[in-house]
Amino acid sequence: MNRSGPLEGIRVVDFSGYIAGPFCTQMLGDMGADVIKVEPPTGEQWRGQDPFAPGFSRSFIALNRNKRSIVLDLKSGEGREVAMALVASADVMVHNYRPGVPERLGIGYDAMRALNPKLIYASNSAYGQEGPRAHQPGYDLVIQAVSGLIASNPTPDGKAPRRYAGIALIDFTAGQMLAIAVLSALIQRQRTGVGQKVESTLIEAALSLQRQKLVSIEGLDGQSPQKAPGTVLERMQRSAGQMTDLSERELYYRTYETSDGYVTIGCLNVPQRKHFMAIVGLEDPWFENPDALPKSEDENRRRRALTSYAEAEFRKTTTAAWVRKFEACGVPCAPVQMSADLMFDEQVEAGGYFVDFMMPEFGRVRTMGTGISVNGRPESYRPPPKLGQHTQEILAELAVLQPAATSRMEDECREHKHG
Amino acid sequence: MNRSGPLEGIRVVDFSGYIAGPFCTQMLGDMGADVIKVEPPTGEQWRGQDPFAPGFSRSFIALNRNKRSIVLDLKSGEGREVAMALVASADVMVHNYRPGVPERLGIGYDAMRALNPKLIYASNSAYGQEGPRAHQPGYDLVIQAVSGLIASNPTPDGKAPRRYAGIALIDFTAGQMLAIAVLSALIQRQRTGVGQKVESTLIEAALSLQRQKLVSIEGLDGQSPQKAPGTVLERMQRSAGQMTDLSERELYYRTYETSDGYVTIGCLNVPQRKHFMAIVGLEDPWFENPDALPKSEDENRRRRALTSYAEAEFRKTTTAAWVRKFEACGVPCAPVQMSADLMFDEQVEAGGYFVDFMMPEFGRVRTMGTGISVNGRPESYRPPPKLGQHTQEILAELAVLQPAATSRMEDECREHKHG
Repeated sequence: MNRSGPLEGIRVVDFSGYIAGPFCTQMLGDMGADVIKVEPPTGEQWRGQDPFAPGFSRSFIALNRNKRSIVLDLKSGEGREVAMALVASADVMVHNYRPGVPERLGIGYDAMRALNPKLIYASNSAYGQEGPRAHQPGYDLVIQAVSGLIASNPTPDGKAPRRYAGIALIDFTAGQMLAIAVLSALIQRQRTGVGQKVESTLIEAALSLQRQKLVSIEGLDGQSPQKAPGTVLERMQRSAGQMTDLSERELYYRTYETSDGYVTIGCLNVPQRKHFMAIVGLEDPWFENPDALPKSEDENRRRRALTSYAEAEFRKTTTAAWVRKFEACGVPCAPVQMSADLMFDEQVEAGGYFVDFMMPEFGRVRTMGTGISVNGRPESYRPPPKLGQHTQEILAELAVLQPAATSRMEDECREHKHG
Repeated sequence: MNRSGPLEGIRVVDFSGYIAGPFCTQMLGDMGADVIKVEPPTGEQWRGQDPFAPGFSRSFIALNRNKRSIVLDLKSGEGREVAMALVASADVMVHNYRPGVPERLGIGYDAMRALNPKLIYASNSAYGQEGPRAHQPGYDLVIQAVSGLIASNPTPDGKAPRRYAGIALIDFTAGQMLAIAVLSALIQRQRTGVGQKVESTLIEAALSLQRQKLVSIEGLDGQSPQKAPGTVLERMQRSAGQMTDLSERELYYRTYETSDGYVTIGCLNVPQRKHFMAIVGLEDPWFENPDALPKSEDENRRRRALTSYAEAEFRKTTTAAWVRKFEACGVPCAPVQMSADLMFDEQVEAGGYFVDFMMPEFGRVRTMGTGISVNGRPESYRPPPKLGQHTQEILAELAVLQPAATSRMEDECREHKHG
C-alpha cells in the first residue's frame, strides 16, 4: 500500500514488542515507511497491557499506528517461510529478542544477510551481545536502577523513588536511538549498496541521558579515579542530604508552590534573575553566581532565609498571576500542568501536536503525533491494526503460500485472537 | 577533513547552543558527518556551564566531540559572508534560535533555501512557530512543568519535585527527534533532490515521552472529555495520595531497600512473579493480576501486609545477595548503582559503551559513546574543539575572505576568548 512521506518506498518488517521497538517503527511509519508488524498468533504483548477491548490497549494504540499486522507462527514451517519472504522483500528488519533467540527462530543476522544483502538488520536489547549481564532480562525500571538514574534521584525520606512521572524513559530513548541507527544505515546503504547490522541497547540509552555527568578527565580526576567510600545506602543518604541543602537555597531554577498549584521558573542568566528579584521583591546579593557554594555558615543561613521568603511570597497568589508577571518580562516560566489537561491546551491545539484517526469500533482516536516536522507533519494516519488485519493482503503481495496454507494460518490466527 | 562512518560526506553547519542542538549534531558527527560548529566570539554558551578551564566544561565536552569550531560574528558583514558560504556548502544546517531571530540574523529559511535548494534546514525551539507560547523562552525544566511531567511526579510531602536525576530529559529527547527528522529528510532528498525544512520542539519531546497516557478514545471517553475538577494543587495532592496507596501494595515492579543499598525488581509476567514469591518467601493470592484494585478494605489491608513483609525481608541482607538469587532464576532485577560507579562497571567495560580521546591540555578524556552501533561503533573520535580552533582551516577550505579579514576575525576571537 502506498504511503507518502520522507521514507516513502522503505519497507520495514518489525518482529519487536513492548515499547522501544514498536516506538521506533511507528516513527518510521509516521515518516512514510511501509511497516509490517509480524505478530505471534497470541498477538504482540503490548496489546494486553491493560486492554480496554480484546487486543487493544491505550499503550498499544499509542505505539502502533501506521503499521500493518500479519500473524505468523515462527515455530511453524509456514510461518517461517512467510517470514523469509517478508525479510527478502524488506529494507529494514527490527527485533528485540534476547541474544541467541533470533538464531533459534531462524532469523539471525547471518541467515538474514545471506537472504537479503541490502537488509538493515536492527535490534534492541537490554545490554547488547557482550558482557556479564548480556543474557539477563532487562526492563525499563531495571535499567533505570542499574544505570544510576534511580540513585541520582534520592528522596529525603530515604525511600527509593518510583519511576519519574511513570514513564518508560529508557525504552523511549532507546527506540529513538534505534531509529537514528536505522536511518544512518539507510543513508550509508544508498552510498555503498550493502546492508548493515545496527543495534541499540537500553543500558546505553540510560547512560546517554546521563552523558553530561559521565565525563572523566585524566588531568583533573587522575589516571584511575577511585570509587567513593561507603555503601550505596550511605552514599545515597549523603547525596539526599546535599540535595536538600541545595534546594534550601535554590531560587532561580526550580518549582514553587502557589495558592492553587505550582509554577516553575528557569532563570539561566543575570538579566532573567534581575527580573525575578524585582517581581518577587527580594534582594539577592549572590544573584550573579547562584550555584556557588556558600562561603560561610552565615551566608548559607542568609541564602536559606531568602528562599523561605520567596516560597512564602509564591504561596500568596495564583499560578496564573505569577505566570502573567514573569512572562511579561520574558522570564522563562510555566504553570505546572496536569498531562491530562494538555488534551485541551491552547498551545497544543495551535501547534497541531496531536493527530486524530478513526477506528470503526471506537470512533475518533486522538493521540500524540510524531513530534517532528519534515516539511510539515504527516497528514494521513493508518489506525493501529487489529491482530492479523493485513495477513491476507500481505500474503497476496508476497504470493508465496498456497491459498490452503493461507487459510490455515488465518484460522489459527482467529482461534488465538481472544486468547 | 575526511570522516568515516554512515554519514561520511555529509556536511552539517551548526549554529545551535546549550544541549538539544549540540547533542543532535554530535550524534551526526559520531556517525561520520563533518560538523562545523559556528560560535560567536564569546563562544557557545555551554562552554561556560561550570567550566573547569577557560572555554571548557564537562557538559560541553559531553556534547561537542567530532565537531570543528569556527568563530563568526553574525552581526558583522564578514561573519555573515562566511556563514553564507558555509551554508551554501552544507547538506544540513541546524539552529535553535527563537522564532524571528534567524531572519534578523539573515539566516532564515527562505534566504537559506534560495542560497542552497538542497539544504536540510533544521531547527529546535521550545514551542514551535505557532501558538500563544511560541515566543516564550523555554528551558528543559520549564517544559517539564508545562507538559505535565512534573505534575505526574507528585511527592508525598507536597513539595514540587526536582528534575528527575538532574537530567535535561526533554533537551536530550528533542535532540534525538531532530536527528531523526534530519536523517529522514536526507533520505527523502536522495530521492527528490530537494531540501527540506525540519523541526523539533521541546514541548513535543515532552509529550512524546508521555504518549502512552495521551490517548483519547471517543467510544470510551466521550466526544469532548472534561477537565478534572479542582485546582492543580488539589488534584496533585489527590494523585500523590493514590500513588502512596498504590506503592503500599506494590510488590513486583519496584525498588526495595536492602541492608546496604537498594535492589530493583521488574516482574512483568506470572512465571517471574512465582519465582519472586518463592525467593522472598511469601504467598500472594493476587499474583496473577497484581495491578487490579483491591475488592475490599480487608483485601487492601492484607495486600499492604504482604508488602510490609517483603520490605522487611529485603532489609535483612545485601543487595548483592538478592541480585544473585533473582538472577539465578531469571527474575529481572538489578542493584541500584551510582552513576559515578558506572565508570568502573564490568558490563559497561565489556560493552565498550564509553569512548576515550586525548586532549593535549587535559590528558585522556573518557565520556559516553554514541550509544548506537552501525556495523560496530565509531572508531575515531575528534576531541571537542577549542573556541575557533578550526577557523583558519575552514576559511581556507572556503577561501572566500581576504587573509586580512581572516586575521581580523581571529584577533576578535582571541580577545573574547576569556571574556
